[in-house]
Amino acid sequence: MMPIVQVQLFEGRSLEMKRKLVSEMTKVICDVLEVSPDVVRIILNEMSRENFAIAGTLVSERK
Amino acid sequence: MMPIVQVQLFEGRSLEMKRKLVSEMTKVICDVLEVSPDVVRIILNEMSRENFAIAGTLVSERK
Amino acid sequence: MMPIVQVQLFEGRSLEMKRKLVSEMTKVICDVLEVSPDVVRIILNEMSRENFAIAGTLVSERK
Amino acid sequence: MMPIVQVQLFEGRSLEMKRKLVSEMTKVICDVLEVSPDVVRIILNEMSRENFAIAGTLVSERK
Amino acid sequence: MMPIVQVQLFEGRSLEMKRKLVSEMTKVICDVLEVSPDVVRIILNEMSRENFAIAGTLVSERK
Amino acid sequence: MMPIVQVQLFEGRSLEMKRKLVSEMTKVICDVLEVSPDVVRIILNEMSRENFAIAGTLVSERK
Repeated sequence: MMPIVQVQLFEGRSLEMKRKLVSEMTKVICDVLEVSPDVVRIILNEMSRENFAIAGTLVSERK
Repeated sequence: MMPIVQVQLFEGRSLEMKRKLVSEMTKVICDVLEVSPDVVRIILNEMSRENFAIAGTLVSERK
Repeated sequence: MMPIVQVQLFEGRSLEMKRKLVSEMTKVICDVLEVSPDVVRIILNEMSRENFAIAGTLVSERK
Repeated sequence: MMPIVQVQLFEGRSLEMKRKLVSEMTKVICDVLEVSPDVVRIILNEMSRENFAIAGTLVSERK
Repeated sequence: MMPIVQVQLFEGRSLEMKRKLVSEMTKVICDVLEVSPDVVRIILNEMSRENFAIAGTLVSERK
Repeated sequence: MMPIVQVQLFEGRSLEMKRKLVSEMTKVICDVLEVSPDVVRIILNEMSRENFAIAGTLVSERK
């Protein structure tokens, strides 16, 4: 039902990292919000460093 | 103008399905909200089963 | 499971309109994508005309 | 820098719950993705049960 | 048509600031992307400091 | 810190355009909202013309 979580992260994380991330985030959410795991949905949005900017500079161009 | 609709769906739908989806969703929106079709925008976000989790498990790993 | 739909619309729609909108959008989505209704989630984001701009002008200020 | 996390949840959670949620989610993210805490941003979007539908029915109207 | 821009900002900005923000952002977008102003849509999402966290701490609680 | 900006645009823009877009948008945001550049984050979401519809028609199919 709820909550729905969206994570914007840089591309290139291993399947193992993703697996662990959604599993542990779901545990935390269920503990704190007192909901059952099956209502938790997590969407991972992978993005290129060329598509994210901080302070006006694309991350792909920093340093 | 409005509304702007965003649909998160699994990748791999045919062009024909997408075409039909946006056409029929737009019809429903115009009927119910009494707006004209040209103010309706629909964004389709296709995602991998490796990037979506339910109950703490990536969909690509279920079963 | 999927799809997750987000609709940005102006505030002030009646409960009846919202009820009809989510019901008919869900029907269309199930028909076209061949999914069962219980995997469809729709989020309505209501917004003020002061928080939406077209062509550089807030909608609250147009005309 | 990254990641940026957005959590859609029903309105009405206490400040204490929000505080704990962002603190523990950040810890998990840092552990799994091996990033430092100051690059993690979390946005909470609270929504009314009248603005979320499952299976074509607004949550405010279920049962 | 495109682009659609979404700005997450803290609540409490004056109407004058919003007006200027959307007007100048639209100008920049049209200049750089070579699109006409009427295809640019900007959505402002105002949020409470209680709903945004950095480094695991809600902004409302910092300092 | 804030604001976080998300730009949905068609794929195929050059790196130079993206670089200029984020740099000039950040300048405008800092000027108008009176924030320092390092709190501004911009996410570019590139999308296919097959995944965006106006008035019920995918942009890839228009005219």
